[in-house]
Amino acid sequence: MDFKVINTDGKARRCSIGTKRGSIDTPAFMPVGTNGTVKAMSPDEMKDIGAEILLGNTYHLYLRPGTDVISKLGGLHKFMNWEKPILTDSGGFQVFSLSTLRKIEEKGVQFRSHIDGSPHFIGPKEAMKIQGLLGSDIAMTFDECIPYPSTYEYAVKSVELTTTWAKRCRELQNEGQALFGIVQGGMFKDLRHKSAEEILGIGFDGYAIGGVSVGETKEEMHEIIDYSAPLLPSGRPRYLMGIGDLGDMLRAVDAGFDMFDCVMPTRNARNGTLFTSAGRISIKREEFKYDDRPLDPDCSCYACRNFSRGYLRHLFLSREILSMRLNTYHNLCFYLDFFRKMRTAIEEGGFNQFKDRWQPVFDKSYPDNGS
Amino acid sequence: MDFKVINTDGKARRCSIGTKRGSIDTPAFMPVGTNGTVKAMSPDEMKDIGAEILLGNTYHLYLRPGTDVISKLGGLHKFMNWEKPILTDSGGFQVFSLSTLRKIEEKGVQFRSHIDGSPHFIGPKEAMKIQGLLGSDIAMTFDECIPYPSTYEYAVKSVELTTTWAKRCRELQNEGQALFGIVQGGMFKDLRHKSAEEILGIGFDGYAIGGVSVGETKEEMHEIIDYSAPLLPSGRPRYLMGIGDLGDMLRAVDAGFDMFDCVMPTRNARNGTLFTSAGRISIKREEFKYDDRPLDPDCSCYACRNFSRGYLRHLFLSREILSMRLNTYHNLCFYLDFFRKMRTAIEEGGFNQFKDRWQPVFDKSYPDNGS
Repeated sequence: MDFKVINTDGKARRCSIGTKRGSIDTPAFMPVGTNGTVKAMSPDEMKDIGAEILLGNTYHLYLRPGTDVISKLGGLHKFMNWEKPILTDSGGFQVFSLSTLRKIEEKGVQFRSHIDGSPHFIGPKEAMKIQGLLGSDIAMTFDECIPYPSTYEYAVKSVELTTTWAKRCRELQNEGQALFGIVQGGMFKDLRHKSAEEILGIGFDGYAIGGVSVGETKEEMHEIIDYSAPLLPSGRPRYLMGIGDLGDMLRAVDAGFDMFDCVMPTRNARNGTLFTSAGRISIKREEFKYDDRPLDPDCSCYACRNFSRGYLRHLFLSREILSMRLNTYHNLCFYLDFFRKMRTAIEEGGFNQFKDRWQPVFDKSYPDNGS
Repeated sequence: MDFKVINTDGKARRCSIGTKRGSIDTPAFMPVGTNGTVKAMSPDEMKDIGAEILLGNTYHLYLRPGTDVISKLGGLHKFMNWEKPILTDSGGFQVFSLSTLRKIEEKGVQFRSHIDGSPHFIGPKEAMKIQGLLGSDIAMTFDECIPYPSTYEYAVKSVELTTTWAKRCRELQNEGQALFGIVQGGMFKDLRHKSAEEILGIGFDGYAIGGVSVGETKEEMHEIIDYSAPLLPSGRPRYLMGIGDLGDMLRAVDAGFDMFDCVMPTRNARNGTLFTSAGRISIKREEFKYDDRPLDPDCSCYACRNFSRGYLRHLFLSREILSMRLNTYHNLCFYLDFFRKMRTAIEEGGFNQFKDRWQPVFDKSYPDNGS
């Protein structure tokens, strides 16, 4: 994996990550394809709207259809017909957030499937094996994502475990697959510092901050973001996991982060919440009933070029599949386009003005983490 | 509306219907866009796969979003971004099959919405007004579709009412909109004959057979199809309403019918039942788990060119939106392609061989009217 810092503007960075399946311009937003598909989108559409990398969820794919199926059908890229880079998470986050009856051991986690209750075990060894069979371009270390709030004592132990697991993952890194280490530590700055030191000590192709947006206040989140970014080396990609609020990402880019993933644009789309250059819109509102204007007059996506707000409202109220399609298409376009503009702003040394232009829009219109 | 018989082969006809929004080659299959969208498809995709005409449901669109909304947003074509011809049904069938608490009067039907129970009234006058505001290219007369079985006495009265309503619709025919009359009569041949005489006597741009596939046996259905086709004039389009089983349509084309509509390819797709040149497939079956072959090796649609049966099975079991999209795309492609082949066979005088080739496949593999 090749990494180049092309430009900086303040702490914001314009970088490029090279992989054998294509390069990724950063700051980059990675749409989430949980079950081997970005919900409601076709891979052709993902390419059309300019996605350069997708995220696949190890936990979900391991449970269904199963690693053996994807492996026998040629790996995740071929399975889902996506030729560009894929990053897989390690399954850690989902094991802790979705499964039931977890038991954490030195070697990993015993848990029951959220689909059928069947018993499973995933630790660093299993996570690396699964990600190897999926054949992603970037794998993540298996980590413990602690709940919010957690006691300091619990967080100390968890950081230790995460370091142990990270070492094991590094030893088992798959040939031809980049591996990113994950820094944990909850809301405790000294533990974030300790975790970063230990993870950096092991040495990875890139570094991520995990365990953010787990229920803490926006203020706590922003503090951890600002505190964590400089802990990570400037010569490697910095990935802030699971943060997808546009205002938060803008702050995180300003702090020096490069990569992001979140279900927010896709999940919100299916719930009828749409992102526009004038703010957030709930398409089901009565005011759009007879509205013949495009959703976002400043957007040139397929949905905005071809349909009225009145039609989009009708599709949503009728629970039509095309509603989820057009809403998702638009929201992802808006996100990817926003990142494109952000990259240009950094290239041109205008990131501060860009931030001043957009931060108030998002802080006003996007008050929470979506529905 | 312009109608030309280009070729005949036995009783099968290869015709062309000209409208101001484009011509329709027949035999034609009309995909159903109930709520102003063919479920799971975009209008661009409908164009790509070669659909020349869509069917819109007056009853559904009248209830939601409401005729006023579609009218204010520029009519149904503009509303759903479909420039080619649209045929609207009259709402009659749905008033009788979906609504509750119906009361049939001389002037129309009082009923309650299946969505929210609100009271409504649709008769010939209302049906013509709604279809005029929707702006479809072909409208249908408001008719009574009687249940199966019905008594002879009830069917006699219903045919009378349908004729009265048809006359009223003809008087109120909208400028620039073709109007088709509908022949009813249940399973009684003499009543079918009487209804045809009366409807033909009024004089319409085209003629339809309604009240078929309402619960009768296949034998009864085939008898009515064979009996009814020659009752309709050869100089006008003949439309067999609501029949979408491939074997049944093959028989009906053989009897001289030109136009068809049915939710079968789209509804079956969403239920995982897929049509292929080797017969019907249930994509959820265990046997496809590791199957890396395309769904139908003889099909060149987007789904068959890009994805394996194993992937389609996974999407279906995961209830992913892309499953409904790819399945629908394929089934509609298969249907439209089948009609293309049927038209070529008639043009080349090879319809009998075509029928011999395909009838056994459908009779074996498609034993019922779908799920």
